Amino acid sequence: MKELAVYVDTNSKVPAYEQIYSFIRDEIINGNIKKGASLPSSRALAEYLQFSRSTILMAYEQLVAEGYIETEPRRGYYVLELDNGFRGSGAAATSQLSLEKAAKEYRIDFSPDGIETGHFPYNEWRRIMRQVVTPENQELFNSGDSRGDSGLRQVISEYLMESRRVRANPSRVILGAGNENLLMIISMLLDGSSVFGMENPVYRKSYMLLKSLGRKIVPVGMDGSGMLVSRLEESGADIAYVTPSHQYPTGTVMSIKRRMELLAWARAKEDRYIIEDDYDSEFRYKGKPIPALQGNDGEDKVIYIGTFSKSLSPAMRISYMVLPGVLYEKYMKNGTYLSNTVSRIDQKAVELFIREGGFGRHLSRMRKIYKNKHDVMLACLRRWKNTVVSGENAGAHMLVHINNGMSGRRLAELADANGIKIYPLDTYYIDEKKSKDTQILLGYARLDAHQIEKGLRELAELWGL
Amino acid sequence: MKELAVYVDTNSKVPAYEQIYSFIRDEIINGNIKKGASLPSSRALAEYLQFSRSTILMAYEQLVAEGYIETEPRRGYYVLELDNGFRGSGAAATSQLSLEKAAKEYRIDFSPDGIETGHFPYNEWRRIMRQVVTPENQELFNSGDSRGDSGLRQVISEYLMESRRVRANPSRVILGAGNENLLMIISMLLDGSSVFGMENPVYRKSYMLLKSLGRKIVPVGMDGSGMLVSRLEESGADIAYVTPSHQYPTGTVMSIKRRMELLAWARAKEDRYIIEDDYDSEFRYKGKPIPALQGNDGEDKVIYIGTFSKSLSPAMRISYMVLPGVLYEKYMKNGTYLSNTVSRIDQKAVELFIREGGFGRHLSRMRKIYKNKHDVMLACLRRWKNTVVSGENAGAHMLVHINNGMSGRRLAELADANGIKIYPLDTYYIDEKKSKDTQILLGYARLDAHQIEKGLRELAELWGL
Repeated sequence: MKELAVYVDTNSKVPAYEQIYSFIRDEIINGNIKKGASLPSSRALAEYLQFSRSTILMAYEQLVAEGYIETEPRRGYYVLELDNGFRGSGAAATSQLSLEKAAKEYRIDFSPDGIETGHFPYNEWRRIMRQVVTPENQELFNSGDSRGDSGLRQVISEYLMESRRVRANPSRVILGAGNENLLMIISMLLDGSSVFGMENPVYRKSYMLLKSLGRKIVPVGMDGSGMLVSRLEESGADIAYVTPSHQYPTGTVMSIKRRMELLAWARAKEDRYIIEDDYDSEFRYKGKPIPALQGNDGEDKVIYIGTFSKSLSPAMRISYMVLPGVLYEKYMKNGTYLSNTVSRIDQKAVELFIREGGFGRHLSRMRKIYKNKHDVMLACLRRWKNTVVSGENAGAHMLVHINNGMSGRRLAELADANGIKIYPLDTYYIDEKKSKDTQILLGYARLDAHQIEKGLRELAELWGL
Repeated sequence: MKELAVYVDTNSKVPAYEQIYSFIRDEIINGNIKKGASLPSSRALAEYLQFSRSTILMAYEQLVAEGYIETEPRRGYYVLELDNGFRGSGAAATSQLSLEKAAKEYRIDFSPDGIETGHFPYNEWRRIMRQVVTPENQELFNSGDSRGDSGLRQVISEYLMESRRVRANPSRVILGAGNENLLMIISMLLDGSSVFGMENPVYRKSYMLLKSLGRKIVPVGMDGSGMLVSRLEESGADIAYVTPSHQYPTGTVMSIKRRMELLAWARAKEDRYIIEDDYDSEFRYKGKPIPALQGNDGEDKVIYIGTFSKSLSPAMRISYMVLPGVLYEKYMKNGTYLSNTVSRIDQKAVELFIREGGFGRHLSRMRKIYKNKHDVMLACLRRWKNTVVSGENAGAHMLVHINNGMSGRRLAELADANGIKIYPLDTYYIDEKKSKDTQILLGYARLDAHQIEKGLRELAELWGL
C-alpha cells in the first residue's frame, strides 16, 4: 500500500494522530484493510497527508499497542489478523467477487458466437506492439479523432473496396468499440420517430440495444431469399436492419433480386435507410463471392457495418461503419463531441497488420481452418436421419432442422442434461412464441474437429437420429 | 491486392471472362483501382472466384491489350495510368480524406484536456504487452464478461479503496470505453423520466451525451463550495451529476459540508442518485486529500465514475464505474447483453501494470511533473495585474479571472489571432448567455514549462496585464 486517503478534520478538537489512528483501526475492523497488508511508511503517509512524521508515528504506535498492526525492521507496518467477531458488516461488501454468478460449464458448447483463438497471430502481434508502443508515437497516447484514426480508416476503406466492393470514402468510415456502440451513434443520427424493421428471427444484441434506446421496432418476416420486402413495405418501417451476407441466425444469403428490391424500397422515400450488418462476410465456403449491398447502392441509402470481431478477435473491440453523405454531415455537425471508443494502440496495430499484409494471410489461414471444421460438421450432419441443414455456406454456424418430433427447446434440454449446449432457433424471434419450432443453431468456430464429431455423435444418440 | 470480389452473373449470356474484364476496366476508369496497384495473380483470382485460370487470363489479356494494365515477370499484373478525362465521377468518392476538416494549428494550446505523453511508461508497456499477447492467454482473445474482466475489476476495486476510500465490490465495478460509454449504460439503468441536475458551468461532453439520449437536464448553480443543494432541491432533479474533487470547468473542490448536504438530498427520496465523476482526482497539489463522496455514502446512493484517461492515457479508453446495489441488480438483469467496450488486451495490460506497482510509480512521477508545470503557471499568473486565479489546487487546469475590461471571448480572439488557444468559461454554461463573462480556463498538461512561460508572457502583453 503506497497511500491511504485518511480524512482528517483539522477543525476538530480530536487531535490529528487520534483521528488517523481511529480511521485506520476502523478500516481494519471493517475488513477494508486486510490481514497482511502493509501500511504506507510513516514518511510516505506524512508527506501524503501533509502532517508531520511524528503525528503519523503516534497513530501507528497506538495501533501497534492495541494489536491491530505490527512493525518489523525493513518490512514496515503490516496488519495483523483479528478475531472474526471483530469484523463489522463492511467486510462482506468488499471481500471478493461474491456476487459473481457461476455460469454453467458445458463439456461441448456449439455456440454460434466467438472465434477460434488458437491461430491468432500472437508472434506478429507482439512484434507490431513493439513498433507501436514507442516514444516516437507519443501523439498516439493522447486523444484522437472522434471517428477513429485516419490511418486505420484509410486501410479499412481500401480493404472494403477490394474485398467487398464497398465504396467508402475514408472520411465517412467511423470506428466504434463493437457494433452496439456504432448502433448507438446511428440511433442518435436518425430521426427519433424512425421505425426500425428487423429480420425475424433476429440478431438479439442489436434488437435489445435498439429497444433499450427506446426505438420503435417492427419484426419483418423472411423467406429463403432474405427479408421480405413486401412485408417491410407494409410494416411502415423507415430503417431496414439486415444481414444479407449470412443472416443471423438463419444463415440465409440474401438473393441478388431481393437486394435490388430492398434498395428500391429505400430509394422510394427520403428518410429510408438500410443498415447492412456484414458481420461475418469474410467466411464463405461455396459459391461465388457476393459483394456487399452497399456497393450496389447508387443513392447513398446504405449504412454499412463491419467488424474485426470475427475476422481477427472480439477482444480488440473494433467495428466500423460507412455513413451515407447526409448522415455523415449530421455526424460531423452533432456527433464529433463523442470521443472515439476504440483503443488507439489497437487501432494502430490493426492498421499496420493490414498494411503489411498480415491480415490477408490471417484471413486465408482462418478460412481454411473454419472450412475444415465446417466440412467435419456437415459430414456428420448428413448422416443424421430426417435432418435438413441450411445456412451452411458461410459464417461459422449452421441452421439444423431436426424432424424427430421434438421441439428445439426439448432437444436443448436433453443436450443440456448431458453437458452439451445447443441453441434453439425459437429464442431468436421477436415478440413471437415459437416454442414448437424444431430448428437449432450449431456453431463450430470454438470447437476442434474432434469435439465437433464427439458432440454430434452424442447428440445423435440422445435424440435418436 | 490479394483478392477482388468481382460479381459474375452465371445466368447471363455475356461470357464470364468478359464480365470480369468489364468489371475490372470500370473499376480502373472510376479510380477504385488505382494506378500502380497490382491485381491478384490469375491463379489466386481463379481460386477466389471459382473460375478456371484460363477464364481469368482471357480477361487479363483483354485488359492488357486495351492498355488498362501491364504485365511484368515476377511482378504480375499492375494498373497503368489513364488520361484524366477517362476517370468517371466515382473517383472523387474514394480518393482520399478530401472531406477532412483542417483543424487550426496553434503555436501554443492551453487546452484543459489531454495529458502529457512524454512520460508514458513506454518500455514497461512493451514488456507487459509481450507478456499479455501469448498463446497461453488464448482465452483473452475471445469475448469476455460484459462488465469487463474480473482481474482488472478486482485491482480497480482495491485501488479505489486505498486511494479514494471508495467501497467497491469488484462485482459492481463496470468498465467502459470512456465516461460517455458508461453514461449511456447509466442512462439505460435509470428511469426514463428521471431529471438530471448538472453543475452549471458543466462538463460539456456529459451534458451533450445526456441531451442527445433525450434525457431531461436542469442546470444547477454553484458557489465556491460546489453545487448548491438548495437549488438542486428546487430544480426537481432526481439525479445529481457532480465533479466534487475538482469541478469541471471551474476547479472548485466541493466542501465536506456540501457533500453531506448532497448525500442527505439523495437519501430523501428512493429514486435519487448522485453521479460522482471523479475524473482527475489523482492530481492534487495542496491541502489534505479528500476522499470520494462515495466513501461517505452509507445508503448506496452514489454512482462513482473514474477513468485512466488522465492518470495513464486517453488512448486506451478505460473508464470504470461502481454501481449501487439496486442499479447493479438492474444491470445484471437487463444490461449484460451489451458487450463490454474496452479492449481486453489493454484491460490485461493495465491490470498487470497496477499489480506490479508500475501504476503507483507512474502516478508519483506524473504528480511531480504536473506539479512543476502547475507551479510555473501559477508563478507567471501571480505577476499579472488585476488577475484572480482559482481552482488551482488540483487537476491540470486553472480558472483565471481577468479584470482588464475584456470578456473571455475577446481575450480568446486576441490570443487566437496570435496563434494561442485559450478557453473562455462562458462556453461551458448550459442554456445561458454569459458572453460578458471575463473568466478563462488555462490548462497545462500538454505544454512544457518553456511553452507555458512563453505563452503567458505573450498573453500578458496582448492583454495589457
